[in-house]
Amino acid sequence: MIVRYERNGKVKHGWMVEEEQKVRVIEGDIYKLQGGKPIMTGLELPLDEVVLQAPCTPSKVVCIGLNYYDHAEEMGMPIPAEPVMFLKPSTTVVGPGEPIVYPRLTKQLHYEGELAVVIKKKAYQVKADEAEEYILGYTCAIDVTARDLQHQDGQWTRSKSFDTFCPLGPAIAPKLDHQDLRIVTRVNGEVRQDASTKQLIFSVPQLVEAVTAVMTLLPGDVILTGTPVGVGELQPGDEISVEIEGIGTLLTHVISQP
Amino acid sequence: MIVRYERNGKVKHGWMVEEEQKVRVIEGDIYKLQGGKPIMTGLELPLDEVVLQAPCTPSKVVCIGLNYYDHAEEMGMPIPAEPVMFLKPSTTVVGPGEPIVYPRLTKQLHYEGELAVVIKKKAYQVKADEAEEYILGYTCAIDVTARDLQHQDGQWTRSKSFDTFCPLGPAIAPKLDHQDLRIVTRVNGEVRQDASTKQLIFSVPQLVEAVTAVMTLLPGDVILTGTPVGVGELQPGDEISVEIEGIGTLLTHVISQP
Repeated sequence: MIVRYERNGKVKHGWMVEEEQKVRVIEGDIYKLQGGKPIMTGLELPLDEVVLQAPCTPSKVVCIGLNYYDHAEEMGMPIPAEPVMFLKPSTTVVGPGEPIVYPRLTKQLHYEGELAVVIKKKAYQVKADEAEEYILGYTCAIDVTARDLQHQDGQWTRSKSFDTFCPLGPAIAPKLDHQDLRIVTRVNGEVRQDASTKQLIFSVPQLVEAVTAVMTLLPGDVILTGTPVGVGELQPGDEISVEIEGIGTLLTHVISQP
Repeated sequence: MIVRYERNGKVKHGWMVEEEQKVRVIEGDIYKLQGGKPIMTGLELPLDEVVLQAPCTPSKVVCIGLNYYDHAEEMGMPIPAEPVMFLKPSTTVVGPGEPIVYPRLTKQLHYEGELAVVIKKKAYQVKADEAEEYILGYTCAIDVTARDLQHQDGQWTRSKSFDTFCPLGPAIAPKLDHQDLRIVTRVNGEVRQDASTKQLIFSVPQLVEAVTAVMTLLPGDVILTGTPVGVGELQPGDEISVEIEGIGTLLTHVISQP
């Protein structure tokens, strides 16, 4: 699985081999593949000598709202006829373990655990049946949301755009069958969301088609596919994790705004 | 005034001297200033030997909705108590003369002429009275909008995010007194919007404060300050310009989606 890590002040991409607790150093960028895999340098590092970062650096994060039936229901919103899109700026992205900052402007911070799609190459006007070739892989994400501001503003952008509101990671799993992956969100170890990606209203290929019908996606750009039922509040000090089958666990925590 | 231009396949920044029809080549990046001005190489080029590009390459374009009283009225929307934010992805940005592509997905393409603020340095939690030191200057923008999709979606993102939906330029005017600038939008030479930035509900410094209370702005990021009354339709073949006092005229045209 592809990771991005910091070591001795330098940030590089690697291939994480969890069972060996190692990271194999990737040559050049992760979007240049050889036989479907990144090019390796042959060097290896112990996993505990690196600090994992967000596994990609998206120019944009395109989010899909209300894409699980039971979440639309819990929000009291109708099922959308087409994917509802909104954007999170790149400044929201943080890596595993980098804290979510609870902004002073909100009194109701919510988690939304989500499957994230990482784009491999420039994608515009891509049809659903060709979508796979534009996807580098999948990672875990939290679409952190200031729920009170979301309701107050009507437009969702502000409530979703605070710095640190898009934890991504720990790794990008390429070639994952995304059609029935279990996704579990825990707060302080307690299960809050437990669903399968088979409950998505619009599938991953349909989302790639819908988004690229509007805008060009660039390598490293991310689509957040929406959150299942069970969203709820976070408080400073809370630990939150999103675990997705075949990817791993994104673990982070919440701090007060300094 | 600061421009970005292409010549012999290379893109650089320059200082445009319109009365001499020349561009003076800037040394290094436009955000490294010496005595408030970019560092010059001493080289000059005739203006007609370069092709102007969007004057900056924002990582994000933060837009403010309903920020002129009479535009909120024409949209049938209440005056917002706080600035309403939405984002346009960086893939919407095009330069002067680069066409706006009329997407097949819409039947109602609208122009919105706007004053754009270009950020000079990393800005987070900036107070209104300190905003000026974070601003590189001002340019003209068109917030192109698929009005039918905007109404249909409720969320504004999709309708504002098509490639080419954010023409910027022609130049960045630094140190401009932004409080009473005439802004005129013309379609095929006919005046459609004619207002002054003194009619803004939230002033430029207030917008910098409101946006940076949420997210970090990076050098080259842009805030679109909202559009005055007089929005309306564009058709393929139309020529559209936005002229702002002290900046110049952003001129472009509309083509059908190929």
